[in-house]
Amino acid sequence: MAVYTEVPDDELSAFVAGYDIGAVLAAKGIAEGVENSNFLLHTETGFFILTLYEKRVRESDLPFFIGLMEHLAAKGLVCPQPVKNRKGEALGRLAGRPAAIVTFLDGMGVKRPGTAHCGAVGEALARLHLAGADFPMTRENALSVAGWRPLFEAARERADTVTPGLRDAAEAALVALERDWPKGLPSGVIHADLFPDNVFFIGPQLSGLIDFYFACTDGFAYDLAICLNAWCFEQDGSYNLTKGQAMIAGYRRVRELTDPEIEALPILCRGAALRFMLTRLVDWLNVPPGALVRPKDPLEYYRKLRFHQRAESAADYGLVALPA
Amino acid sequence: MAVYTEVPDDELSAFVAGYDIGAVLAAKGIAEGVENSNFLLHTETGFFILTLYEKRVRESDLPFFIGLMEHLAAKGLVCPQPVKNRKGEALGRLAGRPAAIVTFLDGMGVKRPGTAHCGAVGEALARLHLAGADFPMTRENALSVAGWRPLFEAARERADTVTPGLRDAAEAALVALERDWPKGLPSGVIHADLFPDNVFFIGPQLSGLIDFYFACTDGFAYDLAICLNAWCFEQDGSYNLTKGQAMIAGYRRVRELTDPEIEALPILCRGAALRFMLTRLVDWLNVPPGALVRPKDPLEYYRKLRFHQRAESAADYGLVALPA
Repeated sequence: MAVYTEVPDDELSAFVAGYDIGAVLAAKGIAEGVENSNFLLHTETGFFILTLYEKRVRESDLPFFIGLMEHLAAKGLVCPQPVKNRKGEALGRLAGRPAAIVTFLDGMGVKRPGTAHCGAVGEALARLHLAGADFPMTRENALSVAGWRPLFEAARERADTVTPGLRDAAEAALVALERDWPKGLPSGVIHADLFPDNVFFIGPQLSGLIDFYFACTDGFAYDLAICLNAWCFEQDGSYNLTKGQAMIAGYRRVRELTDPEIEALPILCRGAALRFMLTRLVDWLNVPPGALVRPKDPLEYYRKLRFHQRAESAADYGLVALPA
Repeated sequence: MAVYTEVPDDELSAFVAGYDIGAVLAAKGIAEGVENSNFLLHTETGFFILTLYEKRVRESDLPFFIGLMEHLAAKGLVCPQPVKNRKGEALGRLAGRPAAIVTFLDGMGVKRPGTAHCGAVGEALARLHLAGADFPMTRENALSVAGWRPLFEAARERADTVTPGLRDAAEAALVALERDWPKGLPSGVIHADLFPDNVFFIGPQLSGLIDFYFACTDGFAYDLAICLNAWCFEQDGSYNLTKGQAMIAGYRRVRELTDPEIEALPILCRGAALRFMLTRLVDWLNVPPGALVRPKDPLEYYRKLRFHQRAESAADYGLVALPA
């Protein structure tokens, strides 16, 4: 949940007057996204989401994110579509921050994803990868393997205060990943944060994807590995092979995985687990006094990492060999 | 800001299916109300607010609040209107809590109220008092004079940790109010919490009142005293006589104040200031570790109390004598 910035009503009205969407009728801070301030906006012409970009999002990255949402929406992928102001710009400034208005997307995140949800997410992820193929901009993944050591260093000293042995385990995993991380896998635009919060469903139907603020250029199969981590484990920490099968099969219905991607799946899953473990660990160790946001548990991803360290092949994630 | 309870999407869908408002398309936690969890609900038939009543609201009071909103809406006052389910009930249960769906009300709270806003609030307050006249239920004001001593006792020991001298000043004010608190003033339904957050405007027009969860049966002029406290002071702590004049005049355009009400205005203002000072003080001294809500500053109301202690008559608040 996150509403960081209060927007005075007169500033808001002036901002919205720069768009061709009618006058503001209502604006309510909403609990969505952990990086930015989001408001539900009702104007004379409909409902929108107003996002104020807080300091964790680099301003120089915003044209990539906004441009990507426009590109994907034009390709028919359902995601929030940036609204342009009268000057033709999708990015403005409000309350001292970069700000954008996007279309309101119906649907809800599922709290307890089932197998069918996982299949739908696999399909949607592959569609996203295909739809992004001709997107002209690139953005390096700051949270890929090269970004993990600085995170580890920031957490190293106090890692064992979270659980004994965490420091050594993280370091060993990091060293192995730095050594063995695959290169040259098929890549392009990835979402890089497609957690259940960011996938909307209406009833059983997937209705859209949101929150593209970690999107970047990286290996497609790494994005799948992130989703396997985020969707296919149960509350008790066990991996649900049926959900994994559904997700991988869903993905492959839209985009076939290459042999190198299949071979790399276990290490990509280890990398994804380490990435979320480390960012959560840093947040966990650096909660400011009086923080209004409760950090997520890094140990959830420590447990997932240990599962991946025992996995031997993509079959352990539910990949079913295709008939020859 | 407040979203305390997460509602699983499947429970939500089942709950909404009990109403005649179509299926759920979206639900977003919104930062509104400090006592309850609120969600913006989009269904096949429109937008609504879903409220889950948290433990600070007594369940036995809910029929009063819900009934009052229905009564006021029927009288033409713009406020959220409870939606009844297929059984004809406006109050249900969701995620283990009492829950209600009310209509979505356009408008926004003003962050920097001007004189015209204060005049409109005075008028709307008087309309509320008249509209509530034939509401058949009553609810004692638990936060009137009899409720202040328990609050003071809960804060007494540590009051001076907030600012030196606060304990003695609060006790002296309390003793005087207990001795002199007026009895027999015109009474009926009052809002009792009509702060700027709870009054919506669209442009310069007042568009509705929300958050009736402190509403009770008490003196009308006490409600006006609460509004003078909440709307007519500047950021620097000074009382804005022009705003006070506008509010009192706005009130009197709709409902004339009686002589005893006019005479009692200074003491009612002192009481209102003490009431908010004490509840804020108790909250301030009892912030649980890891709380997601930042408490409001009790000293704001300590300063207001001191202003009121120097006021001699209603004229000091902007009441203009009517021509004889």
